Amino acid sequence: MNQKFKQLVKLFQSLPGVGPRQATRFVIALLERPEENLGELGESISNLKRDVGFCGECFNISDPSAQTGNSHCHICYDTKRDKGEIMVVEKVTDLESIEKTGLYKGLYHVLGGAINPLDKITPASLRMKELENRLDKLSINSKVELIIATNPNAPGETTALYLRDLFTNKKGVSITRLGRGLASGSNLEYADEITLKNALDYRK
Amino acid sequence: MNQKFKQLVKLFQSLPGVGPRQATRFVIALLERPEENLGELGESISNLKRDVGFCGECFNISDPSAQTGNSHCHICYDTKRDKGEIMVVEKVTDLESIEKTGLYKGLYHVLGGAINPLDKITPASLRMKELENRLDKLSINSKVELIIATNPNAPGETTALYLRDLFTNKKGVSITRLGRGLASGSNLEYADEITLKNALDYRK
Repeated sequence: MNQKFKQLVKLFQSLPGVGPRQATRFVIALLERPEENLGELGESISNLKRDVGFCGECFNISDPSAQTGNSHCHICYDTKRDKGEIMVVEKVTDLESIEKTGLYKGLYHVLGGAINPLDKITPASLRMKELENRLDKLSINSKVELIIATNPNAPGETTALYLRDLFTNKKGVSITRLGRGLASGSNLEYADEITLKNALDYRK
Repeated sequence: MNQKFKQLVKLFQSLPGVGPRQATRFVIALLERPEENLGELGESISNLKRDVGFCGECFNISDPSAQTGNSHCHICYDTKRDKGEIMVVEKVTDLESIEKTGLYKGLYHVLGGAINPLDKITPASLRMKELENRLDKLSINSKVELIIATNPNAPGETTALYLRDLFTNKKGVSITRLGRGLASGSNLEYADEITLKNALDYRK
């Protein structure tokens, strides 16, 4: 088997959720494409770090095209966003999901994951210090609401508890958490105990 | 949102079986990699067509590293392979699956797909003519067995019937097909009618 072919299959396999079969399918699909198409994809990947950076404030993906002048993203740069609300999410994709609803007008903070000792992710490897610095700055003049929006699974819950502990006595900062309960479209009959408990606790 | 980021997500989405979510995960995973890692992947893709070609005989992936001298693949180049057997498969991945068993020692012919009017794949868009030319050449001096190994689904069956029709009267060519019947590990109880009929027809 062609070595270069094998090598590219292996590189694709290192992407999240891609197995050997899918990686092979990728390479064969690419082989059937016109040359310029491959050049475009290849260059986009090679130049990714140059073209795309992370926001120095919230660690969202930054947007140089928005002429932010510095490394800020379009959300942190937007003067119309409410600077009295910071929503803590695990990943950029979570931020995207919230943004798609169009319902939230505050700022974000992308932690970069959730506390998970099994994967060796400790608070030190997340952007906790950066969050603290932002809270210090933002809470000087006005009250800040910290909205915890980590995932409703074990690492997310651990992270939420950690954050609440860390900032519970911080002056000018109030802590809230995304509501918990029944997912819409789900069945009460099949809901697990914790979901039902949450649905009761969060009733209003 | 960063335009370059969006563009790369779109390019990844054009790969088979990749949706917007997985494409976004790919790009974010790449952003977390060291620069040289991205360069390697980018260049491998850009140079793919230069590094990897198709065998001029059977349309398998060719292997310049095997010093074949021409565009032949390691199978067509291998003098120990039986030139009296040609197995027709739809795709290179099918060939790989057969090769992995190590049970087949003949040659292959990769059609490049299966007849499927819904997807506008006609016999003319497959490598039928090339197969005919190979059969003409190989059957001059000795008998050739054409083993049809298309998929056991509607397009594959159509292609198998078409091939049988096309070459049934060809001198020096005998046509066989991969056995059909119960898949190992499956349950007789849950086998469909056609599978059971095949199991009976192919019994020995």
